[in-house]
Amino acid sequence: MNAEIIAIGSELLTPFRQDTNSLYLTERLNLLGIEVIFKTIVGDNREHLTGAASLALSRAEIVIFMGGLGPTEDDLTREAVADALGLELRRDPEIVAGLERRFAARGWKNMSANNLKQADVIAGAVVLPNANGSAPGQWISGKYEGEEKIIMLLPGPPHELKALFDEECMDRLRAKLPPQFMATRVLKIAMMSESQCDARVAPIYKRYTDVQTTILAGAGEIQLHLKTRAGSLEAAQERVDRLAEEIEEELDDNVFSDNGDSLEQIVGYYLQMRNASLAVAESCTGGLLAERITSVSGSSRYFLGGAVVYSNQLKTAFADVPAELIEKHGAVSREVAAALAEGIRQRCGSTLGIGITGVAGPAGGTPEKPVGLVFIALASEKGTEVAERNFPGDRNRIRFFASQLALDLIRRKLM
Amino acid sequence: MNAEIIAIGSELLTPFRQDTNSLYLTERLNLLGIEVIFKTIVGDNREHLTGAASLALSRAEIVIFMGGLGPTEDDLTREAVADALGLELRRDPEIVAGLERRFAARGWKNMSANNLKQADVIAGAVVLPNANGSAPGQWISGKYEGEEKIIMLLPGPPHELKALFDEECMDRLRAKLPPQFMATRVLKIAMMSESQCDARVAPIYKRYTDVQTTILAGAGEIQLHLKTRAGSLEAAQERVDRLAEEIEEELDDNVFSDNGDSLEQIVGYYLQMRNASLAVAESCTGGLLAERITSVSGSSRYFLGGAVVYSNQLKTAFADVPAELIEKHGAVSREVAAALAEGIRQRCGSTLGIGITGVAGPAGGTPEKPVGLVFIALASEKGTEVAERNFPGDRNRIRFFASQLALDLIRRKLM
Repeated sequence: MNAEIIAIGSELLTPFRQDTNSLYLTERLNLLGIEVIFKTIVGDNREHLTGAASLALSRAEIVIFMGGLGPTEDDLTREAVADALGLELRRDPEIVAGLERRFAARGWKNMSANNLKQADVIAGAVVLPNANGSAPGQWISGKYEGEEKIIMLLPGPPHELKALFDEECMDRLRAKLPPQFMATRVLKIAMMSESQCDARVAPIYKRYTDVQTTILAGAGEIQLHLKTRAGSLEAAQERVDRLAEEIEEELDDNVFSDNGDSLEQIVGYYLQMRNASLAVAESCTGGLLAERITSVSGSSRYFLGGAVVYSNQLKTAFADVPAELIEKHGAVSREVAAALAEGIRQRCGSTLGIGITGVAGPAGGTPEKPVGLVFIALASEKGTEVAERNFPGDRNRIRFFASQLALDLIRRKLM
Repeated sequence: MNAEIIAIGSELLTPFRQDTNSLYLTERLNLLGIEVIFKTIVGDNREHLTGAASLALSRAEIVIFMGGLGPTEDDLTREAVADALGLELRRDPEIVAGLERRFAARGWKNMSANNLKQADVIAGAVVLPNANGSAPGQWISGKYEGEEKIIMLLPGPPHELKALFDEECMDRLRAKLPPQFMATRVLKIAMMSESQCDARVAPIYKRYTDVQTTILAGAGEIQLHLKTRAGSLEAAQERVDRLAEEIEEELDDNVFSDNGDSLEQIVGYYLQMRNASLAVAESCTGGLLAERITSVSGSSRYFLGGAVVYSNQLKTAFADVPAELIEKHGAVSREVAAALAEGIRQRCGSTLGIGITGVAGPAGGTPEKPVGLVFIALASEKGTEVAERNFPGDRNRIRFFASQLALDLIRRKLM
């Protein structure tokens, strides 16, 4: 089957915002073997929207509308799709009651009348509950000009759309499809360049002509996506697993995950497995490393906390870095990184301590200590190791690279 | 005038690649007062492409095709646009000669025949030289079904497209336009719901029928984009400024920025203006607040640092929160938030101190202290205030809301 995705919102026709939801939906649709043949981006304009809806219905089997389901005057998706289908909108009393409960639960009074728009349902549509927002989705399955169509109206905010699509639409779509089997596998690799990685793995994946291999490169991380289809799930899985195994053998411990887990999750698993705890003292990353580690639910089991020591005084106050050491070597130095890691480990009583200091830029660089220079230290009971790197890119990229290498150092230490 | 942008390439219909050229073109077109009313993404399929071209010609005054001009079998833009227009393709001997020179200059022999496709020109088109690649662009200006249309065929690689559009298309477009000028303004609002905000500002912006107002809502932040055109830049600017002023009067100090600055930047300006410094003690946000503050270059001038105090021991060790206080009220409490803020302020010697404690979830909630409950304290020499909130959403969203409210408390304190 094929699909058209329509992203709705005048903001998506400005230079400032871009539809990204469709990438997620495409991935999910591809998993089911559904191909996306058109994407259309249309503003909050009823005539344009109705026209785009009619056209999509005439050229695709599945049409997915994203956005324009909120309470404002601009939100016109329900009206336009109803127009295109020649169907009525009906106000659903259950949704109205739900909206009222939602408002009451937040202690808000006087729900404004425009909120009730969100209770309008196209005749014959199934209402798809939205656990994360006030506007529900809608699913319509029926004939349009004599042909079977599936139509979905989904909310625009990414966290609402993703949860609703996964929980309400995937099974409904699957039930409409002929049985077929797809297997996928994702390998994640830390701190390797794309060309280095590809040079080593291309000779392997090129032999697997039945498996689609896609390389995605980000800051300090490469992902290899493997995908294949076969007559049975076992046969498909066997093919991607065999290729994954060959690649893992070649790249060895550069592969940190083969099941989708993030580097922060993997570090969490290792820390728990070794019954170890972690504390961090961050200068140039400014809390990013702690933020990434604590983005994992349950991280309090192994992450004690740490210090963001932007000023030299705090390097001394929170991580016991001697003021003379900073004076002698400078705040951005191998010695201060080591002292940060050792100091925070002692202070917090953790198994491992991380210290990071560097020049994130754009200002503050010197010929000896240029923007991008970062020292990352890992202290344990056996001693302290310090990595020195010159990371490319802007402030955000340098900070991310530094946090990524810190996580990778911990992983390798515990492996 | 209005435009439709058509991005061509099957890779743009996968989960891994996205059209970004259109953001650049939109910015340039908006500068000329041209509005983008549709964007379409279509694969390398002649029938789909011809259909998309015919449709765009029927609904937009300017149609820009990007991509599909290369030498491979997949490159079908010239053929499809010629079909849609009912015009012939003619092989241009000058382009052929140029391709041959280009090949010879690189020392390549035997230019393969498919390269000659790039010399095919739609009857009546102006050839737009491409300084950065082998495929030239094309410009067509004429009637389609009785209406004046402008059609551009541009290469897909971003550096080729941008240079060619700026050098060859901007002046040609300007010559077709009545003199007009566009002015824009962006207002940013913190910690208000979209429906609350819209209910208050819709009566105002609806009176400005000549100004286009777009609402963008994110976690804890709303942006109002105002845009208008007029006969002179002054007249256009005056209209958006007057609307902005009315909205700012209505929303008062809920508006934190009217020039595009982020909340973390605004907080930085205020801290510098007041010659004040800041330190933070974060539990549930795990470093996110520090990370956001330090994402601004130059933040070391006002941000001293802080502590990520995930464990109770560290709340005592780094922010002097008495163990008995945690014992008595629990780590997630008004009292502990206040003690964190006061403790970190004392420890770091900063003007202001922030303390955050809460339940980010998904685990750890109880009936009395559910997931989403967050206490945020701001301590100054005049005392300590504590905000209590029940934030909706998942772990990431709750953490972001908490960091956003903390920044907004600081802003309001310093205003």
